[in-house]
Amino acid sequence: MTHRIDHTPFLVPPGSRVCLADHDPGATAGIHSKKEARKALLEDVTYLAEMQRLLWASDQVAVLIIFQALDAAGKDGAIRHVMSGVNPQGVDVYSFKAPTDEERLRPFLWRPARVMPARGRIAIFNRSYYEEVLVVRVHPEWLEQQWLPPEYRDGNLDGLWQRRFDEINAFEQLMIENGIVIIKFFLNVSRKEQRKRFLERLDNPEKHWKFSASDIAERRHWDEYMHAYGEMLSHTSTEAAPWYIIPADHKWFTRACVADIIAGRIEDLDLAYPEVTDAERSELAAARKELNAE
Amino acid sequence: MTHRIDHTPFLVPPGSRVCLADHDPGATAGIHSKKEARKALLEDVTYLAEMQRLLWASDQVAVLIIFQALDAAGKDGAIRHVMSGVNPQGVDVYSFKAPTDEERLRPFLWRPARVMPARGRIAIFNRSYYEEVLVVRVHPEWLEQQWLPPEYRDGNLDGLWQRRFDEINAFEQLMIENGIVIIKFFLNVSRKEQRKRFLERLDNPEKHWKFSASDIAERRHWDEYMHAYGEMLSHTSTEAAPWYIIPADHKWFTRACVADIIAGRIEDLDLAYPEVTDAERSELAAARKELNAE
Repeated sequence: MTHRIDHTPFLVPPGSRVCLADHDPGATAGIHSKKEARKALLEDVTYLAEMQRLLWASDQVAVLIIFQALDAAGKDGAIRHVMSGVNPQGVDVYSFKAPTDEERLRPFLWRPARVMPARGRIAIFNRSYYEEVLVVRVHPEWLEQQWLPPEYRDGNLDGLWQRRFDEINAFEQLMIENGIVIIKFFLNVSRKEQRKRFLERLDNPEKHWKFSASDIAERRHWDEYMHAYGEMLSHTSTEAAPWYIIPADHKWFTRACVADIIAGRIEDLDLAYPEVTDAERSELAAARKELNAE
Repeated sequence: MTHRIDHTPFLVPPGSRVCLADHDPGATAGIHSKKEARKALLEDVTYLAEMQRLLWASDQVAVLIIFQALDAAGKDGAIRHVMSGVNPQGVDVYSFKAPTDEERLRPFLWRPARVMPARGRIAIFNRSYYEEVLVVRVHPEWLEQQWLPPEYRDGNLDGLWQRRFDEINAFEQLMIENGIVIIKFFLNVSRKEQRKRFLERLDNPEKHWKFSASDIAERRHWDEYMHAYGEMLSHTSTEAAPWYIIPADHKWFTRACVADIIAGRIEDLDLAYPEVTDAERSELAAARKELNAE
């Protein structure tokens, strides 16, 4: 039913070393046009709505979908388009902005732990706890405001990032063993395409309120981000929760690909609608009798 | 732009006495066909998506939408269809099922207070704190498990419902004064149509898992519910937060009407995209210059 798109090239094999320079942000995996992608997206969105009903009805597992990317890679649009057919009652979206005071005074995994999806539901993280090895790695001065294990409080960060990778892997393993499926997307936009999208925003007065000087400031750290992302992808793509590197220079491809992967991953769970028990069958028969007699 | 549907007949005038027998669940307010309703719904959903972007961007107020109804009146379908075009990042849906232990040990307005929408966001309550004057009024034995003011703990409930109406009105007033717009829908399904929908569920094996014996049990209390709803509508339709009684025997009408009212209510707020300040304009110019120089 699904797998309209061959996404094996986008899966990061656990234990492999990722160099983002080897991943083409313009790839479209055999989808040749916007039109073709839109058709696939529409089919997948419809199918995804069906998969979500099944997830809800079977009430066995929960799904966590993580989106990480640099600015203007299309996270918001992907979330909006991919989830457009899905019942909003079964989905919660959390944006991981700068931590609140309540959050930064606690260990960094306290934040996601509080908002894990309940059984039968989907949670989407727009950015996530992975920012703790991304923006924080590029700007280590942010650590000063955070709760940190005592051995790193003197500013010596040797080992901190590896420790966080290990903690994240252990945390995800724990969640997975307790019934949460984790799907992780890195939307891979090129430097050139980001520039183009920023200029488009600057040229469109309706989007000016969306633009912040910090967008440009972060772009100056492009190479450091590429390094931080490469490290993250290399150390946290596990058998249980692998990363997908989704080409993001064509929004239509990103959306179709993400929808296809999510629908396929839920399909692979092989969920079923609950069986009606004999006791329930008697109740149903009694209910029918009562209604018919009215 | 909006108000495709004349919904003045569905608004409960503050201070009026509501008798549900006077409200026709089959009304369609000048919409003559499913097709016409679908067209209106589609237009309203598109417009609502625009209104939500504005709500988000202007970051001034929040919107709370409450759905109350008996079983099979179409709450879930209305939420799914009306919100289908809206960005899931800006909407949270809360289902008020039986209170958890944490909730029932506290005053009943603690529950909604915790999940009020943040500025710029929409929250939808599928059922709500109004259940405390509905299902609890029909089944007062539930009060035994709840936190209750001392004077009602001996089982003498004289005055409890009026007290709760007053508390709800005060609570909503407080929320409204603090920037939350409250839109309240009662989906009014007829006894006959509910029977038809129950029988359809019973005839459809795919929907058996959804059916519970308690659905039929509650139907036996139909008249008590009509009384409780009438009381609620009479006492809690205020200038600031009036109730709408939406005819619910035609799902296509319910959905179109609800979408039209929500879009119209947000439109009436007269929100605007934030103005770009001179300082921001300089920043935008600097950003453009930097990108162009690359």
